[in-house]
Amino acid sequence: MSHLRVARSTDGIHFEVEGLPALVAATAYEGFGIEDPRITQLDGVYWITYTAVSNYGIGTGLASTTDFRKFERHGIIFPPPNRNVTIFPEKIGGQYAALHRPMPEGLGQHSIWTARSADLKSWGSHRVVATPRETGWDDTKVGGGAVPFKVHFEKEDGWLAIYHGVTGTPPVYSLGALLLNRYDPSKVRGRSREPILVPEAPYEKEGFFGSVVFTCGALNDGDLVRVYYGAADGVVAVADLSLQEILSGLVA
Amino acid sequence: MSHLRVARSTDGIHFEVEGLPALVAATAYEGFGIEDPRITQLDGVYWITYTAVSNYGIGTGLASTTDFRKFERHGIIFPPPNRNVTIFPEKIGGQYAALHRPMPEGLGQHSIWTARSADLKSWGSHRVVATPRETGWDDTKVGGGAVPFKVHFEKEDGWLAIYHGVTGTPPVYSLGALLLNRYDPSKVRGRSREPILVPEAPYEKEGFFGSVVFTCGALNDGDLVRVYYGAADGVVAVADLSLQEILSGLVA
Repeated sequence: MSHLRVARSTDGIHFEVEGLPALVAATAYEGFGIEDPRITQLDGVYWITYTAVSNYGIGTGLASTTDFRKFERHGIIFPPPNRNVTIFPEKIGGQYAALHRPMPEGLGQHSIWTARSADLKSWGSHRVVATPRETGWDDTKVGGGAVPFKVHFEKEDGWLAIYHGVTGTPPVYSLGALLLNRYDPSKVRGRSREPILVPEAPYEKEGFFGSVVFTCGALNDGDLVRVYYGAADGVVAVADLSLQEILSGLVA
Repeated sequence: MSHLRVARSTDGIHFEVEGLPALVAATAYEGFGIEDPRITQLDGVYWITYTAVSNYGIGTGLASTTDFRKFERHGIIFPPPNRNVTIFPEKIGGQYAALHRPMPEGLGQHSIWTARSADLKSWGSHRVVATPRETGWDDTKVGGGAVPFKVHFEKEDGWLAIYHGVTGTPPVYSLGALLLNRYDPSKVRGRSREPILVPEAPYEKEGFFGSVVFTCGALNDGDLVRVYYGAADGVVAVADLSLQEILSGLVA
């Protein structure tokens, strides 16, 4: 059953996966496992959002840790059907902020929304950020990926959020970027016209769920954007991208 | 387009509907209208939850008023797909509480959940209260109806929540009751084995959406439970029920 383990590395490329799980299914909302952790450091605490799968649906839980050995659960913060939750790494306008991805059927699409919170546990002020577009790569679903990080572009700070876009049957999952307003992350300054990463390698095209690149985390250092991503739901891979190339590919 | 109007009455039976709307669609989340208001009085303010329907899906918005003439909007408090939100009429354990009804498809059913809040605008601590049962009347969907009210039963206070249950194709909407723990409304003390109201009258069986009784509000005075409800999505009707009869029909 899906669970979360800690992997450690000194160079960010070679990892040692711990022998025992760090977080396993433990509540009624996690009966089919937990997946897709996104981790945000705030005030010395690592806050982990994760997808909780059960007979009640697919929702998002919150856990925290300071040492990646002992974890505390904080319950379901976005009830089903909602996943792909990333918490911004600092308060914005005095409140915490997150991206989330409700999954309406019939009316509404799988789109990226923002929410705001005073305590990381109760969320409100829900607003749409980005819906699927008719582009050929993110026309069916979009969802948050890596925790957004701050960048400077065209004389202004902004948040760069790497997200996934879905197209086709069977679905193909690619990655793109959103540049969000520094002070109001529901406002989109720019969005990748073309994907910044598409499934090409054999381990991205064939696997448990083929033709998928899906990120839960990225590092930024100068021009380097190092994206860690799940490939074909089978392995974790890494790709080094150029921040300037990502920014130059944005359109209004 | 669906909107909300004020209706006034001196006896609770004969109403005069105001000539002009009170709340009309006004945001991107209300593009197809607003529906199903539930009103809770807290500290002199009337808090109105309502279903907001748009291309973004079906979510729940919050508005408030003190005089039913001037209204203030507070945004989307439960993002799509989520409706049937009722706020409890007092704080429970120091926090506000609500019932809500997420609408997962595939994995999960349309079930009643609780959430908690410090300010009525941000919600967390999401927990399942009641899922559909194999009873023949609430086996497909369940959702909150009237704002819960406090009752005394078997030597303990509790919250009585009148909810709707759905069965069949085409669907039939009936009403039942949940008795919830006074201090933790996610805990169910009892639930109607049989419905307390089913579509029987011609105006309940035939209309815009036939075979529907659907409540957004009820009054309790002694043994009287006066239920106001939409009938066949065409008219508003009223039924007087006995609290003792409702309570005696509860099963574990």
